[in-house]
Amino acid sequence: MAIELKDLTKRQDNYSQWYNDLVIKADLAEQSAVRGCMVIKPYGYAIWEKMQQQLDRMFKETGHVNAYFPLLIPKSFLSREADHVEGFAKECAVVTHYRLKNAPDGSGVVVDPAAKLEEELIIRPTSETIIWNTYRNWIHSYRDLPILCNQWANVFRWEMRTRMFLRTAEFLWQEGHTAHATREEALDEAVKMLNVYADFAEKYMAVPVIKGVKSANERFAGALETFTIEAMMQDGKALQSGTSHFLGQNFAKAFDVTFVNKENKPEYVWATSWGVSTRLMGALIMTHSDDNGLVLPPHLAPIQVVIVPIYKNNEQRDEITAKVTPIVEVLRKRGISVKYDDADNRRPGFKFADYELKGVPVRLAIGARDLANGTVEVMRRDTLQKSVEQLDGIVDRIGALLEEIQDNIYQKALKHRESMTRTVETYDEFKEEIEKGGFILAHWDGTPETEEKIKEETKATIRCIPLDGDKTPGKCMVTGKPSAQRVIFARNY
Amino acid sequence: MAIELKDLTKRQDNYSQWYNDLVIKADLAEQSAVRGCMVIKPYGYAIWEKMQQQLDRMFKETGHVNAYFPLLIPKSFLSREADHVEGFAKECAVVTHYRLKNAPDGSGVVVDPAAKLEEELIIRPTSETIIWNTYRNWIHSYRDLPILCNQWANVFRWEMRTRMFLRTAEFLWQEGHTAHATREEALDEAVKMLNVYADFAEKYMAVPVIKGVKSANERFAGALETFTIEAMMQDGKALQSGTSHFLGQNFAKAFDVTFVNKENKPEYVWATSWGVSTRLMGALIMTHSDDNGLVLPPHLAPIQVVIVPIYKNNEQRDEITAKVTPIVEVLRKRGISVKYDDADNRRPGFKFADYELKGVPVRLAIGARDLANGTVEVMRRDTLQKSVEQLDGIVDRIGALLEEIQDNIYQKALKHRESMTRTVETYDEFKEEIEKGGFILAHWDGTPETEEKIKEETKATIRCIPLDGDKTPGKCMVTGKPSAQRVIFARNY
Repeated sequence: MAIELKDLTKRQDNYSQWYNDLVIKADLAEQSAVRGCMVIKPYGYAIWEKMQQQLDRMFKETGHVNAYFPLLIPKSFLSREADHVEGFAKECAVVTHYRLKNAPDGSGVVVDPAAKLEEELIIRPTSETIIWNTYRNWIHSYRDLPILCNQWANVFRWEMRTRMFLRTAEFLWQEGHTAHATREEALDEAVKMLNVYADFAEKYMAVPVIKGVKSANERFAGALETFTIEAMMQDGKALQSGTSHFLGQNFAKAFDVTFVNKENKPEYVWATSWGVSTRLMGALIMTHSDDNGLVLPPHLAPIQVVIVPIYKNNEQRDEITAKVTPIVEVLRKRGISVKYDDADNRRPGFKFADYELKGVPVRLAIGARDLANGTVEVMRRDTLQKSVEQLDGIVDRIGALLEEIQDNIYQKALKHRESMTRTVETYDEFKEEIEKGGFILAHWDGTPETEEKIKEETKATIRCIPLDGDKTPGKCMVTGKPSAQRVIFARNY
Repeated sequence: MAIELKDLTKRQDNYSQWYNDLVIKADLAEQSAVRGCMVIKPYGYAIWEKMQQQLDRMFKETGHVNAYFPLLIPKSFLSREADHVEGFAKECAVVTHYRLKNAPDGSGVVVDPAAKLEEELIIRPTSETIIWNTYRNWIHSYRDLPILCNQWANVFRWEMRTRMFLRTAEFLWQEGHTAHATREEALDEAVKMLNVYADFAEKYMAVPVIKGVKSANERFAGALETFTIEAMMQDGKALQSGTSHFLGQNFAKAFDVTFVNKENKPEYVWATSWGVSTRLMGALIMTHSDDNGLVLPPHLAPIQVVIVPIYKNNEQRDEITAKVTPIVEVLRKRGISVKYDDADNRRPGFKFADYELKGVPVRLAIGARDLANGTVEVMRRDTLQKSVEQLDGIVDRIGALLEEIQDNIYQKALKHRESMTRTVETYDEFKEEIEKGGFILAHWDGTPETEEKIKEETKATIRCIPLDGDKTPGKCMVTGKPSAQRVIFARNY
């Protein structure tokens, strides 16, 4: 392990390589035999499970229910909504046959040409089409509304350049799809779920986010409005972390979903969809981790506290175990997940490095001298600070320390973002500042053409038009035309 | 609703139609636009979620962790294990292209012939191949073993005749894949998970099962031994409800997965796999439900108790609500899920029929007279019996009643199975008895040929060679050759 740690690239040497190394070395995920598809390893999956559980709770608290819709979508469904097909047809996995047969030469199996599908099926890149085709039969009257469904599912988009968690061909996500009687109610829902995502990011992932609206260029294919939460990584690049779409009546029109309103008149249904994915794992890793490995927020760490005994013989070990066992029990009763690692086949130094690499928030080490003194060594992963503490009352202090770490890494990320957010007035200034990374607040004339020009010349895109903050109008830094408010530019993942 | 209930086919008229009706009318699932794929509706999915949560808890208690492996499998992987490819190549969805493009005539989208994959990909029908290809890099020494992974996933098998939950092209399941250093340890694991499945079926689903071993004909493609739990439905047909496979070293050999053992010698790894699926929903529905609708075991019911107020005006309703609110709170504190349905737009009779159809185990109805008398009407779904009870102490009685219902439906199903299980000596007797349905215990000479003959002539298969019970040897009812013990024959789903 000492060797492996040495192999972890330093952030300042190569941030991108550091990320790739970390995903592998912390046992989070690895590439599979299928291009662009990853294997999520048990430790990585355990973090994702904690995310899922919390998000699922928040969805249910806001009145949503889970359901499950088919993996495969008839090809013709994709082209029903004009913008949607442009956005998704280019990158999808197409099922054309339903059977293999033995190769005549005995070399294995080949596709059976007799088993060709009449209409090809697409592995869902997102499920608006199949779901709205289903909703047609669920919705007749305003009494059937709203429908507030979510599904946890895998989706597939044929990406050319992939990076584990950040951009993979197959990924896991949740997609909420809601149906409403009025425009206003649908818009409220889209904003409500944006707020749920922001709360989750900030309170559980300890990742500060900016809530905003996407420009037309960056909008979801088929949406009238896309809301987003944008986070800043340690290298100053933006990561879109969750989106919530107001779909208007586009999908209702494409799939002919109408309802009879209270005035007894037929009307198209209003829609939203919203999703977060295993991409959040990438945001989590890149926001907090350091050159020693992962730093996990206590609210999502599969192991929150690890206790490592330091002993010279079995007698010492047994004494330590006897002292530690009741502490472990009380911690567990308080809902804190603890691992007591008294495994004999690895030395303490090896274990320390491993749990640092894995980002366990709090490590306790206890040896013979501690036993004699009634003390324990406490190391917090975020600052790597060690302190010797009294065993008496240690449970309360661990509970408080976990909350302190949770808050500290959030504040640290927030300060980092603030220090890398600047306001510019001119395009020249912009070009200079964007090279240094971070978020640049600048005026823009609201046109796709100007945004496109800036992107081509600087590789920066509009991450969002922020919902909160300064709303002073001004003049576009490129064209000098009127600008309603400053927007956030950044290079992004 | 009264109308819809009338439309529910009676079991004795057409059991199969009753099942299909019930799945639709109880809002569990429906057919989708993709042949053989169903939509699992929120109420059905809520039951499946309860199953998942409990199974996941049991897997973790037995030392397993979750992970996630790719949806798509390279075609060539399938043919690595000779038996496996025979079992699965015939019925799989094949991805051949990775892009669509606009049709030249503007009619929609077509497959882009330029985007043909070099090697086709298969949507996983099960994941042994991709997982063992992954394990090759995870396993080097006996110290890396055992690996005890599970995944919750969707799988796809191109079935020609489908029925919701029982046999669908896409279904949801969990698949455990474990790797071991010794044959004995792998066999123990396979049996351990069989026992976990049996416990789950009996204690949570209230479905009695027979644990046994599959004959060679019914074995999983690639396994040395398949263990199974077999349940009997109300129509006397068997339903295979979960299987656990001892795979020997077959997949380790196919994917070249070796480890260095304690004697420092290379050896192939030993394997198991085990799975249960949304098919369990079919078992649950068909075991307990009746002509009034679903009957759900309290341990898996999304709503365990529903409370319906009966009132003539808002004042009465408010009085009832005031009385009921603290009861609801106490029930929830005890972990009992309660719905207080004071919705104004449906009459009590309609609500009663609807909650019966949905299988809610306990229904309370409370009206003005009850308020005056301090009473409540309690209806239990399993027997449809009503009783008037004192409100005082009602919380304790509901807790006890839920357990009583759980036990009662299990006992009822067990008695049904026992009453439909017979022993026969001759093949003539067998042919007569098999027509009446149920499990037939008979002697069999252990050959695939005899089993095949019986299947052709009677449509009955060997469901399993039971692990428990009578082990007396005898003579095969068909050939007169020696038989080690009686086996269970039945027609099956």
